[in-house]
Amino acid sequence: MSGNTFGTLFAVTNFGESHGPAIGCVIDGCPPGMALCEADIQPDLDRRRPGTSRFVTQRNEPDAVEILSGVYEGKTTGTPICLMIKNTDQRSKDYGNILQTFRPGHADYTYWHKYGIRDPRGGGRSSARLTAPMVAAGAVAKKWLAAQYGCVFRGCMTQIGEVVIPFESWEHVPNNPFFAPVADVSKLETYLETLRKAGDSCGARIRVTASGVPVGLGEPLFDKMDADIAWAMMGINAVKAVEIGAGWDSVTQRGTTHGDSLSPQGFKSNNSGGTLGGISTGQDLEVSIAVKPTSSIISPRESIDLAGNATEVVTKGRHDPCVGIRATPIAEAMLALVVMEHALRHRAQCADVRVPVPPIAAASR
Amino acid sequence: MSGNTFGTLFAVTNFGESHGPAIGCVIDGCPPGMALCEADIQPDLDRRRPGTSRFVTQRNEPDAVEILSGVYEGKTTGTPICLMIKNTDQRSKDYGNILQTFRPGHADYTYWHKYGIRDPRGGGRSSARLTAPMVAAGAVAKKWLAAQYGCVFRGCMTQIGEVVIPFESWEHVPNNPFFAPVADVSKLETYLETLRKAGDSCGARIRVTASGVPVGLGEPLFDKMDADIAWAMMGINAVKAVEIGAGWDSVTQRGTTHGDSLSPQGFKSNNSGGTLGGISTGQDLEVSIAVKPTSSIISPRESIDLAGNATEVVTKGRHDPCVGIRATPIAEAMLALVVMEHALRHRAQCADVRVPVPPIAAASR
Amino acid sequence: MSGNTFGTLFAVTNFGESHGPAIGCVIDGCPPGMALCEADIQPDLDRRRPGTSRFVTQRNEPDAVEILSGVYEGKTTGTPICLMIKNTDQRSKDYGNILQTFRPGHADYTYWHKYGIRDPRGGGRSSARLTAPMVAAGAVAKKWLAAQYGCVFRGCMTQIGEVVIPFESWEHVPNNPFFAPVADVSKLETYLETLRKAGDSCGARIRVTASGVPVGLGEPLFDKMDADIAWAMMGINAVKAVEIGAGWDSVTQRGTTHGDSLSPQGFKSNNSGGTLGGISTGQDLEVSIAVKPTSSIISPRESIDLAGNATEVVTKGRHDPCVGIRATPIAEAMLALVVMEHALRHRAQCADVRVPVPPIAAASR
Amino acid sequence: MSGNTFGTLFAVTNFGESHGPAIGCVIDGCPPGMALCEADIQPDLDRRRPGTSRFVTQRNEPDAVEILSGVYEGKTTGTPICLMIKNTDQRSKDYGNILQTFRPGHADYTYWHKYGIRDPRGGGRSSARLTAPMVAAGAVAKKWLAAQYGCVFRGCMTQIGEVVIPFESWEHVPNNPFFAPVADVSKLETYLETLRKAGDSCGARIRVTASGVPVGLGEPLFDKMDADIAWAMMGINAVKAVEIGAGWDSVTQRGTTHGDSLSPQGFKSNNSGGTLGGISTGQDLEVSIAVKPTSSIISPRESIDLAGNATEVVTKGRHDPCVGIRATPIAEAMLALVVMEHALRHRAQCADVRVPVPPIAAASR
Repeated sequence: MSGNTFGTLFAVTNFGESHGPAIGCVIDGCPPGMALCEADIQPDLDRRRPGTSRFVTQRNEPDAVEILSGVYEGKTTGTPICLMIKNTDQRSKDYGNILQTFRPGHADYTYWHKYGIRDPRGGGRSSARLTAPMVAAGAVAKKWLAAQYGCVFRGCMTQIGEVVIPFESWEHVPNNPFFAPVADVSKLETYLETLRKAGDSCGARIRVTASGVPVGLGEPLFDKMDADIAWAMMGINAVKAVEIGAGWDSVTQRGTTHGDSLSPQGFKSNNSGGTLGGISTGQDLEVSIAVKPTSSIISPRESIDLAGNATEVVTKGRHDPCVGIRATPIAEAMLALVVMEHALRHRAQCADVRVPVPPIAAASR
Repeated sequence: MSGNTFGTLFAVTNFGESHGPAIGCVIDGCPPGMALCEADIQPDLDRRRPGTSRFVTQRNEPDAVEILSGVYEGKTTGTPICLMIKNTDQRSKDYGNILQTFRPGHADYTYWHKYGIRDPRGGGRSSARLTAPMVAAGAVAKKWLAAQYGCVFRGCMTQIGEVVIPFESWEHVPNNPFFAPVADVSKLETYLETLRKAGDSCGARIRVTASGVPVGLGEPLFDKMDADIAWAMMGINAVKAVEIGAGWDSVTQRGTTHGDSLSPQGFKSNNSGGTLGGISTGQDLEVSIAVKPTSSIISPRESIDLAGNATEVVTKGRHDPCVGIRATPIAEAMLALVVMEHALRHRAQCADVRVPVPPIAAASR
Repeated sequence: MSGNTFGTLFAVTNFGESHGPAIGCVIDGCPPGMALCEADIQPDLDRRRPGTSRFVTQRNEPDAVEILSGVYEGKTTGTPICLMIKNTDQRSKDYGNILQTFRPGHADYTYWHKYGIRDPRGGGRSSARLTAPMVAAGAVAKKWLAAQYGCVFRGCMTQIGEVVIPFESWEHVPNNPFFAPVADVSKLETYLETLRKAGDSCGARIRVTASGVPVGLGEPLFDKMDADIAWAMMGINAVKAVEIGAGWDSVTQRGTTHGDSLSPQGFKSNNSGGTLGGISTGQDLEVSIAVKPTSSIISPRESIDLAGNATEVVTKGRHDPCVGIRATPIAEAMLALVVMEHALRHRAQCADVRVPVPPIAAASR
Repeated sequence: MSGNTFGTLFAVTNFGESHGPAIGCVIDGCPPGMALCEADIQPDLDRRRPGTSRFVTQRNEPDAVEILSGVYEGKTTGTPICLMIKNTDQRSKDYGNILQTFRPGHADYTYWHKYGIRDPRGGGRSSARLTAPMVAAGAVAKKWLAAQYGCVFRGCMTQIGEVVIPFESWEHVPNNPFFAPVADVSKLETYLETLRKAGDSCGARIRVTASGVPVGLGEPLFDKMDADIAWAMMGINAVKAVEIGAGWDSVTQRGTTHGDSLSPQGFKSNNSGGTLGGISTGQDLEVSIAVKPTSSIISPRESIDLAGNATEVVTKGRHDPCVGIRATPIAEAMLALVVMEHALRHRAQCADVRVPVPPIAAASR
């Protein structure tokens, strides 16, 4: 209700602030009997972690996850799994002066009005740091979905500022700090260096996909698979747009083109992005998101103070020139959490239905 | 849980099928003491109603709403409001042969796999007809929000197929069958006539806005105002993309441009689309959606039958050449329902907080 | 959230007022593919129906249920099932004068303070008439549980006022208007006649059981099977106490007696009432409830009016001398709804767990 | 959904096992701006803490609470409050042999069937130790309710085994280890010593009350104040019965007696226990519960092993001879959590209703 729990059957309750003692989450609903240890989770956290390249914030956090509950002798017990990540590098002095003003593009103004009180240390609760527990929870979901259905979740950057990044191969993604599916990222490096020197920031476009999702997941009217994906993606800090499958292109498409034909060998295209009527088709889920430019920039900005007077804000501290860079593992995790939720719902609803037609093979879009 | 309830504090549970005895919804959580009668609801239903022009389905349904509960002597009592719309024009014979095949672009294939059973009459539960109860519920929300905050919800078509529609004025919207904000719609008429003759359909882009939304509505992490808007919009039949504020443009914007400056006179721009950190800023909520082309077209399509054999599908019946046309009142209603939900949540959370800084005036984007 | 929906995976949203146009419910989450028609539901409604003997209210309502959605060609489709019961005998003139006063023991005072508005016709929303839709929904749950697990739900009256009713046989229950498990009910008839002549009312104790509930249903901490049963029972109008298994006797029992021993042939007793640690044991669920005396009595009562002045209230109209009489089918239905909810949850949580030890046979308490 | 979250608007998600690294909870929905520190919570935990007298388990746990989030400079921020209690005294060797058998009266058998895996250390998740985080969360709710409405929550033991404890005064409760409202507890001490020497255990009856609860809290049909209280109480480990107000006595009461008369000075009795039609009357909430005898006793019990063979179980370790003793602070906390939830719901629903009749003064029952 208060917006800190994601999901219902696989419910992830997130807690913490950027510079408090710890951040973390409680996963309620993880099926019992799955092998789970910190090493299953840490790699995804490391992909999201700050300080890994000169293109992301230099805040140095190991982001080491601890499992506080829900696992006995290396297996999940079906009871809540509490994952805790201690905050170690806090340097809150960098943020002291922002309590009296509202930084443009930040949640300062809205939090102040909603709560009447605000934790200014590193953005407090509104910090993108709170995506770390979701990445951790997503790793748990990914492990279960991989074992159960062979699901694979992948993401990459497809545009940064004006630079469109062509898709060469998923293999390149882990080999550069941008999650770019290209072998040569020198152009991106140059672009970002220029931006940084200008004291500015830019947006990005991220693509995430899920393969192996079985047909039949999702609800008919309101918790449609695509609606829940949109909700999850738009819930990531700085995301301003979401599209599924053909997305905006569907505005100019014809019905004769858009509707994916079926054949005995499978679908012939994937304009739907893997969902029809809100329910998964068995094809890849295909999602793209727009991430706005980092709001924390060193260039001075016009704003007002608490008394409503005009003032100027300069944001110091250590910030990402493009928050979209680290959005890739986050978006993957959110997609995994949505699929996980619907996989469990499906079992509740349909376990006794014997489906008479086997799912047909999926086409890639 | 099963995806037929929208909202929690203002919870709308939708029921019915396109060609069953009736469709409707139960609204649970409407504040008591508000004057309410069918005449408050019917006008919005009439805007969405089929058969109103030659550019939408010729199905002739009066869509007359009946209030079955929750109102006593013309006022809401705080108890559930059941709204029922009887189905009168059903002609289910038009749909008889589709039970053995899966229409491309439709939910036939996924419903079949999810439920193992399917109501084929007019698409059954997957029909866009089920948006009518949401339009009705939205009218209730709009009335309360108008009285409480002076909120105004507006929508218009901004593109149909390749035809981009410039914004002239909100005043034109009710004067043409396209919800287009222009005085002269002859170009749109010609475009659609050509399309219809070709037996094809096209997509559309719709814009909806909400004015008068107070600052402070929305949740911090997962039920962000923008996330819930994305969820609501992507839950409308045929929607494939959603953007808030600058949306996709934020990919190429700079941080120095995107972040909306504040001044003593208010925000200086509205790239945020009325939400920062998931919480409303007091500026207009600005949303755009992409609606895919109608899947029901008379051109023959490749598909398979229940046994998995190749077949051809031709969809007869009475269909909209562009389902996006009637999406405008639907999207308005969904936006109103999201704002209503968060307005009630806000009261639960913050009624005793005395906000020390008054909301500043809003700029239009 | 507003207290009109029961359950989450098998969610029953109740609507209507005692003297409005109709009452009913929407069942969301019923598994698809189950044969269902009005005749499956009507018998349970007839058991609860008023006017069936001189010991219950003489209001004459056929309580005929109509299925408005969710069923296609006689089978559930997995989509919401709307059940509607039209109100036919309303005689609202009997209730006219109570709008200015608060009847002792009724919800008049609290509804007035909660909502600031009140539908006085027959108690409006607070009428026990609103249990009818739950009995209807319970019949749907019973049918599914019977088919899936062989569950049987039974209830009987075990005490009325001071008269303790011994348990002779379940067979007698349908043969008398009291749901009493005895062959000869003349003593009960005499007791109630005396009470009626005195213009007074009395309470009752009702027992309900569920057989065939599989082991393993229920949640560990807060949605315990027994907690949800207590919630469901205490939610029935006029119920003031609930006990499970040994109930109050467990206060004076010793640990050596209370804890049910296990043997290779099954449990040796059922002090637990079929639940341990909140989870079903496979033994019969055993529940008892206390129902308070009917508040609507013709004897004059002290009260106050809306202005806070002393006044006297006499309740006319047609009322049950013991509302506990008709509570038996209601309590059965509520128990069935609780078990149904947990049966569906169980499938979500544990479908892939292969239980190595088969459930052992159950003992009756 | 998985039964580890209590409440919706004031949602407490509980995590941990008896002998894992830590137990705790996340409170989501605490209003912002309330002063809060560990010292507000620790006293209630100390009342529940083991090892405080020779009549409770000798497990020595400081149960020191740490606030990990949601508080900034000593005030709640409206974001999730994570409370963690590290487990320090674990001695898990005492429990090693119980993994192969099912202890009578314990959750061993049902957990095994539900999850297929079981954490045997101290009962794992089914341990009453998991009530500690609820006591901590209850302390937060109590503080807010006291400041907002002047609510006071109190509890006492009214019976232990066969020994009925008369009510002398609330003042005695903190002065003896039994939470007994009497000056002289020597009789209770003797009773328990005899029981302990016999290697047995007994049940108890606990009474809890809430004063100062405003009129109008609770929902009309299913989340009735009394239903939610019953759910909360029956959810406490070992509770087998709940009554509100007159409770079981209402079976033999007459309508002329039971219904509490109103006068300009207030209600004249409190048979309702502070709730009518599921909504609080403004009188004291009056609740009693039955707690079964401790299942962990050193007397040997018949049981079966995992293979279904007969065996004998002797429970060693450090156990309470009457778990009801420590139930008093737990029941108080649960009652506070229920009231808190409904207080927040009330604000969402009714903040704009101007109640025309002021609540009248409350009578004590």
